[in-house]
Amino acid sequence: MKSILLIISFSFMTCNVKKEEITLSQLLSKGQWIDLSYDFSDQTIYWPNNPVGFKLDTQFNGITPAGFYYSSNAFFSPEHGGTHLDAPVHFAKGKWSSDEIPLNQLMGDAVVIDVTEKCAGNADYQVTTDDITAWEKRNGSIPDDAILLFRTGWGKYYPDKEKYIGTAEKGDSAIAKLHFPSIHPDLASWLIKNRKIKAVGVDTPSIDYGQSKDFKTHQVLYAENIPGFENIGNLDQLPLKGAYIIALPMKIKDGTGGPLRIIAWIGN
Amino acid sequence: MKSILLIISFSFMTCNVKKEEITLSQLLSKGQWIDLSYDFSDQTIYWPNNPVGFKLDTQFNGITPAGFYYSSNAFFSPEHGGTHLDAPVHFAKGKWSSDEIPLNQLMGDAVVIDVTEKCAGNADYQVTTDDITAWEKRNGSIPDDAILLFRTGWGKYYPDKEKYIGTAEKGDSAIAKLHFPSIHPDLASWLIKNRKIKAVGVDTPSIDYGQSKDFKTHQVLYAENIPGFENIGNLDQLPLKGAYIIALPMKIKDGTGGPLRIIAWIGN
Repeated sequence: MKSILLIISFSFMTCNVKKEEITLSQLLSKGQWIDLSYDFSDQTIYWPNNPVGFKLDTQFNGITPAGFYYSSNAFFSPEHGGTHLDAPVHFAKGKWSSDEIPLNQLMGDAVVIDVTEKCAGNADYQVTTDDITAWEKRNGSIPDDAILLFRTGWGKYYPDKEKYIGTAEKGDSAIAKLHFPSIHPDLASWLIKNRKIKAVGVDTPSIDYGQSKDFKTHQVLYAENIPGFENIGNLDQLPLKGAYIIALPMKIKDGTGGPLRIIAWIGN
Repeated sequence: MKSILLIISFSFMTCNVKKEEITLSQLLSKGQWIDLSYDFSDQTIYWPNNPVGFKLDTQFNGITPAGFYYSSNAFFSPEHGGTHLDAPVHFAKGKWSSDEIPLNQLMGDAVVIDVTEKCAGNADYQVTTDDITAWEKRNGSIPDDAILLFRTGWGKYYPDKEKYIGTAEKGDSAIAKLHFPSIHPDLASWLIKNRKIKAVGVDTPSIDYGQSKDFKTHQVLYAENIPGFENIGNLDQLPLKGAYIIALPMKIKDGTGGPLRIIAWIGN
């Protein structure tokens, strides 16, 4: 009897030691990071009626009087273009601005809802609760605190304005010509009532579809302090579940959004 | 005898299962993230001879004709101000621009070199190899692929220009009045030859001290594609070792730097 008891206690000690040994650095080395961010350039896509897009001005580029090489720029950008954050205050007065969103709200397990086939034949497709139900039938209920990403397949068109947003025209007249899929407002309302998510992201320019006039999905989610990530790249490289998202926006005080660097970790 | 063998095999099974069970999400829940980034506002600190700093312009803020609340801004910023990235190309022609730095170069185990006491009496202090030796005597050799952060104690002065950079004046005449500590060029050269680091960061405006004329530390490190993180906040909240850094800069194509969101994870 004594010898048996000794073996049991030894086995528990071994397990505890092994668990404590795993560091964040070691765990991350067992997988890879994928960059879901487009770069900012004169090709970066903004809303058609935005007077100016991203602009990079050279301040200096060459050899200084002191004899060493030096280069530096300044830039201009609207908050809402390219891969960017929508802070809840963008459509919900008094809710979080870009600098107020807690870091924990910007990172979590990724759930990827793939509606590529439905969107292929319909640029005005809006993701419905049925698409969520289909995902949950295969993968189980969306876990609490997930970051919900919608893969429409539109990423392959970026930055071709004609294909990605529906028109290459500029100005207010172009707004009526916007065509791209996104999230149906009814689904936004359903998510608020039935699931606990941290944020939503899309591989199109907006979390409301191109033809939206009232931006209801924005209004519904942002009123609940659920941020949006727009123009996300490389969504086709993510599994339907199992990836981990870290989304770090430029920390603009009182910002309604801003440039976002969003990355996904996939374990081996 | 048989019963003893059964217990042993069972104990190994238990251990294996426990090891595989640990996900990134679960590991991160055992610690906390600290934001090392200052926000961008009209208080953000830039080099005194930079004609313009951060500027946020309201594009719309109020109730739209359609009847819902909406707010949006555009902004201007030099690449090098506030909590920001120095891309190697900032001082080394042909080296990585902001968009070219691999994600893995921007994250790693933090090593914090605390020279607060030495800087308290000397705003022109430059961190030497002796300071590294002192750290290594207590903590062992700087691990490969570490992100080396220098804590001078200057963070407590931000954004008081007089105390943080040495002058509140603007223009070229103010450059000679810059006083703040940073990394000695001899240490930069020593690190290149003797240690393998991913990046360096400082809680002052520059990886060269305020009185530098040739920015030699920049030249030495950037020639080796080692990026710099400047104006880092909350360094006083990090342990000397054990924290993990993730630094995600705005992805500016051909950028020499840019706004940086840098965070540190500390396990419990």
